[in-house]
Amino acid sequence: MAQEMNRQVLLASTPDGMPAEGHFTVAESAIAPPKDGEILCRNLFLSLDPYMRSQIAGRHMSGSTAPGDVLKGETIAEIVESKHPDFKTGDKVIVPGGWQTHTTLVPQPDAPPPMATRRLNPAVYPMSLALGALGMPGLTAYAGLKHLGQPKAGDVVVVSAASGAVGSMVGQFAKSLGCKVIGIAGSPDKCKWLTDTAGFDGCINYKDEAVADGLDRLCPKGVDIYFDNVGGEILDAVSWRLAIGARVILCGLISKVNSSEPVVGPSPGAFIKARATVRGLVVYDFWDQMDEMAETFMKLIEAGKMHFLEDVSDGIEEAPAAFVRLMNGQNHGKTIIKLL
Amino acid sequence: MAQEMNRQVLLASTPDGMPAEGHFTVAESAIAPPKDGEILCRNLFLSLDPYMRSQIAGRHMSGSTAPGDVLKGETIAEIVESKHPDFKTGDKVIVPGGWQTHTTLVPQPDAPPPMATRRLNPAVYPMSLALGALGMPGLTAYAGLKHLGQPKAGDVVVVSAASGAVGSMVGQFAKSLGCKVIGIAGSPDKCKWLTDTAGFDGCINYKDEAVADGLDRLCPKGVDIYFDNVGGEILDAVSWRLAIGARVILCGLISKVNSSEPVVGPSPGAFIKARATVRGLVVYDFWDQMDEMAETFMKLIEAGKMHFLEDVSDGIEEAPAAFVRLMNGQNHGKTIIKLL
Repeated sequence: MAQEMNRQVLLASTPDGMPAEGHFTVAESAIAPPKDGEILCRNLFLSLDPYMRSQIAGRHMSGSTAPGDVLKGETIAEIVESKHPDFKTGDKVIVPGGWQTHTTLVPQPDAPPPMATRRLNPAVYPMSLALGALGMPGLTAYAGLKHLGQPKAGDVVVVSAASGAVGSMVGQFAKSLGCKVIGIAGSPDKCKWLTDTAGFDGCINYKDEAVADGLDRLCPKGVDIYFDNVGGEILDAVSWRLAIGARVILCGLISKVNSSEPVVGPSPGAFIKARATVRGLVVYDFWDQMDEMAETFMKLIEAGKMHFLEDVSDGIEEAPAAFVRLMNGQNHGKTIIKLL
Repeated sequence: MAQEMNRQVLLASTPDGMPAEGHFTVAESAIAPPKDGEILCRNLFLSLDPYMRSQIAGRHMSGSTAPGDVLKGETIAEIVESKHPDFKTGDKVIVPGGWQTHTTLVPQPDAPPPMATRRLNPAVYPMSLALGALGMPGLTAYAGLKHLGQPKAGDVVVVSAASGAVGSMVGQFAKSLGCKVIGIAGSPDKCKWLTDTAGFDGCINYKDEAVADGLDRLCPKGVDIYFDNVGGEILDAVSWRLAIGARVILCGLISKVNSSEPVVGPSPGAFIKARATVRGLVVYDFWDQMDEMAETFMKLIEAGKMHFLEDVSDGIEEAPAAFVRLMNGQNHGKTIIKLL
């Protein structure tokens, strides 16, 4: 019987601009047996996220990925062999498993978030939600909106990349708090899902309408909270349409992550005019609220007030194509690679 | 005996870029006798401020100034004739007097700040401080640092345009609260005054040293509070050197106010990295703290812990040249036109 191998995706070369499948390569290596203190994990689901593009570019706080490296990423995994006293075979964990079928590592429950090993919350169903709506993207949405946005009923909340893993949770959480929610997304299908299923009050398809015009139409009194996942021109357009006292949450820069040109932001004049409070969000700072978020969001899901979209591909060799689609905004919801 | 006339400075033409004296013209008109409900003011001191450039460009929240208009501005005035029951001849007031020797107006104590008439605080000495250190610029420094900056002892505070009417008060107020204060200014003389007289801990002459290098030298652990009066490259340089949890106060854009090019700000990435809180400041929002500020700052002045610089020119016909110097950063301290 042939020995089972660890199938991995490596970075073949560093993209200059938008990544293509050719920047990645699939390889096999022997599965490393665990040494004392280590666990051997079989990865079940891999999360693909925009921040990985910054790791590839060598400018993310969670570390860098160079040619020849296995790509990094969070996985849900089952322990197939444990040489660590606190974990046993069959335990389900969330680990920095990377783009591969098997991972051998020393579990570090107290490491900084991207390197931490945590137990899968058994209440999370389906399990893959622990990487999306009830995982890091969900926490990003929860903590960002709640703590940096400080929403109150009646606030006009705008969110970009609105059908994505973070954006869709931001909008639905805001709806549950009594806000008016407008999404910005890049296709009629995404907008339709946001208004018809996720309950958004409106959606601007930025490929079809200038964001400024859409905001004038849908938010004539200005924007109280803007949750920005994109940067660039959309951030600029919203910044000039903030209501007095607005809050802006800076969460990501997907519109610029594939550009090597210097990135700029809106003129300070926009924020002065609105007396805005603009805050940078790093989800790792809110890691201790993971359970609180999951409990809050699970109740909304069970009550039919929160919906989620997963964009699931099957098999590790599909990860490069799925990542390229994510970078091009062609994903529908949270990008997941199923490895079961 | 010749009739006394009202000498005025009018905008002759709208500058495209840096204003020159030729964009202004001096004129005379008859002094308008007050009607019922009006007061006739003889202006004693006129305040020149950077925001006037934005009024000339037609993009300031306090109103615009078109060719042929008398320039707007705050003055300290003595009432020479009153037909308003609440004011009498000899009262000293601060009014929207404009660039002229005499102003006839309906006093509006409850109007929004730039149009309001208020009584001169008799404790303010010298009187001209009511336009600078103990006036709108002082309030800008006080409210911005206190409420938006939330300083605590030991914080590293950086302020740009540091020898100006606002910046010099920001730094000295921060010193009184136990902060370490670094100024950014544009000449050796300004830096010398800031460190030797105003008690700043250090000063970066941005014409002599890259601001980034100066910050690395003087603030190796990063910047906790940045009070920005300039925008542009200096804002960008400081934004990438913020400490975790930093506060940025956006107060003005003097580096860009004479440019017709689109103004941009720092990449959101700088603020995300630092988990910064960036807030836009409009001093009008804090008008009710004017007396509290004056009391606080007067105590510091009396204790020898706060110093002020005034750049005083004599006579209304000097206003255009003084304003051009202000725009070119050639002023030393608060720009005042003495009309006594």
